[in-house]
Amino acid sequence: MLNLLGYNYIAGGRSAAGCVELHSVDACTGETLPYRFTQATPDEVDAAAQAAEAAFPAYRSLPPERRAAFLDAIAEEIDLLDDTFVALVCRETALPAARIKGERARTSNQMRLFAQVLRRGEWLGARIDRAQPERQPLPRVDLRQCRVGVGPVAVFGASNFPLAFSTAGGDTAAALAAGCPVVFKAHSGHMATAECVADAIVRAAQRTGMPDGTFNMIFGGGVGEQLVKHPAIQAVGFTGSLKGGRALCDMAAARPQPIPVFAEMSSINPVVLLPGALEQRGETVATELTASVVQGCGQFCTNPGLVVGIRSPAFSQFAEQLAARMADQPAQTMLNAGTLHSYAQGVAALQALAGVRHLAGRPQQGRQAQPQLFQADAALLLAGNERLQEEVFGPCTVLIEVADPLELRRVVQALQGQLTATLISEPGDLAAFAWLVPELERKAGRLLLNGYPTGVEVCDAMVHGGPYPATSDARGTSVGTLAIDRFLRPVCYQNYPDELLPAALQDANPLGIMRLVDGEVSRAVISRG
Amino acid sequence: MLNLLGYNYIAGGRSAAGCVELHSVDACTGETLPYRFTQATPDEVDAAAQAAEAAFPAYRSLPPERRAAFLDAIAEEIDLLDDTFVALVCRETALPAARIKGERARTSNQMRLFAQVLRRGEWLGARIDRAQPERQPLPRVDLRQCRVGVGPVAVFGASNFPLAFSTAGGDTAAALAAGCPVVFKAHSGHMATAECVADAIVRAAQRTGMPDGTFNMIFGGGVGEQLVKHPAIQAVGFTGSLKGGRALCDMAAARPQPIPVFAEMSSINPVVLLPGALEQRGETVATELTASVVQGCGQFCTNPGLVVGIRSPAFSQFAEQLAARMADQPAQTMLNAGTLHSYAQGVAALQALAGVRHLAGRPQQGRQAQPQLFQADAALLLAGNERLQEEVFGPCTVLIEVADPLELRRVVQALQGQLTATLISEPGDLAAFAWLVPELERKAGRLLLNGYPTGVEVCDAMVHGGPYPATSDARGTSVGTLAIDRFLRPVCYQNYPDELLPAALQDANPLGIMRLVDGEVSRAVISRG
Repeated sequence: MLNLLGYNYIAGGRSAAGCVELHSVDACTGETLPYRFTQATPDEVDAAAQAAEAAFPAYRSLPPERRAAFLDAIAEEIDLLDDTFVALVCRETALPAARIKGERARTSNQMRLFAQVLRRGEWLGARIDRAQPERQPLPRVDLRQCRVGVGPVAVFGASNFPLAFSTAGGDTAAALAAGCPVVFKAHSGHMATAECVADAIVRAAQRTGMPDGTFNMIFGGGVGEQLVKHPAIQAVGFTGSLKGGRALCDMAAARPQPIPVFAEMSSINPVVLLPGALEQRGETVATELTASVVQGCGQFCTNPGLVVGIRSPAFSQFAEQLAARMADQPAQTMLNAGTLHSYAQGVAALQALAGVRHLAGRPQQGRQAQPQLFQADAALLLAGNERLQEEVFGPCTVLIEVADPLELRRVVQALQGQLTATLISEPGDLAAFAWLVPELERKAGRLLLNGYPTGVEVCDAMVHGGPYPATSDARGTSVGTLAIDRFLRPVCYQNYPDELLPAALQDANPLGIMRLVDGEVSRAVISRG
Repeated sequence: MLNLLGYNYIAGGRSAAGCVELHSVDACTGETLPYRFTQATPDEVDAAAQAAEAAFPAYRSLPPERRAAFLDAIAEEIDLLDDTFVALVCRETALPAARIKGERARTSNQMRLFAQVLRRGEWLGARIDRAQPERQPLPRVDLRQCRVGVGPVAVFGASNFPLAFSTAGGDTAAALAAGCPVVFKAHSGHMATAECVADAIVRAAQRTGMPDGTFNMIFGGGVGEQLVKHPAIQAVGFTGSLKGGRALCDMAAARPQPIPVFAEMSSINPVVLLPGALEQRGETVATELTASVVQGCGQFCTNPGLVVGIRSPAFSQFAEQLAARMADQPAQTMLNAGTLHSYAQGVAALQALAGVRHLAGRPQQGRQAQPQLFQADAALLLAGNERLQEEVFGPCTVLIEVADPLELRRVVQALQGQLTATLISEPGDLAAFAWLVPELERKAGRLLLNGYPTGVEVCDAMVHGGPYPATSDARGTSVGTLAIDRFLRPVCYQNYPDELLPAALQDANPLGIMRLVDGEVSRAVISRG
């Protein structure tokens, strides 16, 4: 058994001034684990936000290389988390050890990728317009722009990725890379995991000499509201439910100083099956799609929750094959009792809808989630039924048969915003259905062809975002290197001498980065006019 | 006299279904001008937003060169607006002809600059991560990202720049460049001007074959609220008061689908006078600063409204010189009666504050604005007085004397968010006061050294933005080419064949743009793995 204090992480120290105790729970048995955590008091929430604010001036002023070394050190510390840790995460989340080991590597590689971003320098958005003293009718002064961190960021992690989307997950990595200290609200579903990861971050911060308060973590229910309202907090990263995310957005918008909230919330990730593909390989698609729906007990933001095809004998056959495969899938344990409860409610709500038929799945009962397949009338979606487009988080999907390509278009147009939209097609389909691509571009942040949306690559080109309600701001992504943009703002320096400019904007280009100089992208050293 | 219809611009046509008539007014005399405008009815507001939505799929899909040609054509049409037009703008705004001619050139050049941005291609944010089929433990699929317009944009222009920040101003240019159709709410202070400019845009749209509904304009009071709440509108650009901007932000945040509002609102643009500069050239600074305060009757977002210096004989002398010069400044006519009324109220409110002394300026009365200089106790600002930091739009500024560098730091830290922050200094000052730069970076979007904030260059490096309440989102700018970013969102294509990809992401790089390919910036043609 690990020795965990269960205290809040504030300004490089530990604090437990409160008297509300929280317990970690075995996700499979519901048994209380021998780890206790002390909920942050209002004073401690304040202290954590103040600590982040106090750290901000020094942390943001560090050379990018120093912050990169910090992220690399976090990656090393995460890689060192051993099998005892993996077993602990498994107990708290019911996720299998192989998955947790993979996620550990994903989490450390994500930190390393942001370290690369810091060294590469495009994140600085350096732009230089040199003086034109001779310009008529008015001279132009020297103007230079680069980006700086927005300030302390509050991060709310996800239950379903206890490592990659949590304490040291993508939002934390992006904020720390941007020069923004973090106050992390530990997820109630994996508090012991959060403590081990926070310890790893703190060790890395100490090894690399980061200011105290660069990373803070608080435990507790309800502490998030105070955090989002705290004047020191300048942006929020969140992954979770639509209800929870929207509540944070509303709070942030109502502050005396409104702040941006980047909430990744609700998506049913439509999969459109084109006729040629159903003809050629309907059975394979049924197998692959089933695997995607039930993978990880369906506990993915990108789980395919809606499958649309055009009426045909091939579609009918596919529907039967999909139903047969879904009926064969075993029940699985979910992340926690709350998730299972929500899943049961979601399944019951679908089942109760007029125009929805149950195609496969054992009755939802007991301590595990039963995979479910439904079929809904296209008319229900076209009539704007909101329940049908609400994410049911778990191993469940809804099939829709449309009459023809025209109805397909109307169904696609009736969709809400999504994280992903997938086309399953043969080359022959694409000529006839090319119009689908611009329609889907309007609906989703990531468009897939002949793949399945579960599995999100962490890279430069990834977009894990999309129009509302998939996220609160379609202009952001919470996976991939573009995620850093959410926590940066531009600053312009007019007529500043080299010695007062950030390194990114100095004549000699000491960081060796790409810059937009007088309208041309270059790494050149420049001189003044 | 120009022949103006006064009808709303909807989907390439004109419409006047309502019965509320609005009149254009001579800004100098208050006399009603012979131009009538018909307020848009709720149906017309709806039709304008629907027209923008209907145009969006075709407009956003145009090759960037086509949109660039459109912007160039708008520029040409604006340059053709003649002296009759200039005289009309002068009558509606009381601004002098030379200023309006300069603004005309600025407005057309702004359009041309965004045309260049479209041709240059960095705005597309193209990123390509090629497939790595051999990667262990899992292969990587081909992932490519570029940016697309967010959808129809509602734009609210400013009274003080009837051309450059209005109908065909920076927000309109940025939105049109991004591929977003615009619904412009004509400013009530220059409706005839707005009609002439809208005609120029419509002529350009027709010449270059843009879809109907790419640009729409509605007249009227109160129509803005319906516009911001319209489901077709996906973002808002606004320049105006804090009260008006914040109201739009609150409305947009409360929509079923919240949308971003980029509101440029309230800034007092602090100027910090360092000791060496006061010693060396206090009298020159007093002259230059006075000119900046009263330029254009102080009707600039970047008007210097707060001047801070450290107690010294040189500062006292400077204060006397500044007061003498301010006392000499003539009254000027403001943009309209509402602006004058607000100015008189703002001046009276400052005058009524305990801790504020009146240093110069004739009593504010009559039809013109009297330049005013006040001095406020530093303690008032340090105590968090909000009135002292409220923008008084007009030829008015407030002097603050601080005891020492420590108090200077506290005053700077107590400032709200600003568009600009200026240092007036000699080289010898900078060593002792280098700590000011990072403090000011947190407060403002643009930092100036030995210049005056009025006069905003339209270029790549400009930031006309800043922390709240200067704007609603410090991550944007409303002047300069970075303004396009506000209206773009990223989309990722996974495993897409070349023929379905946007040109920006195709292997052959047909647009010849800079792209981030496997982590390296290049214009290279690429091949697939």
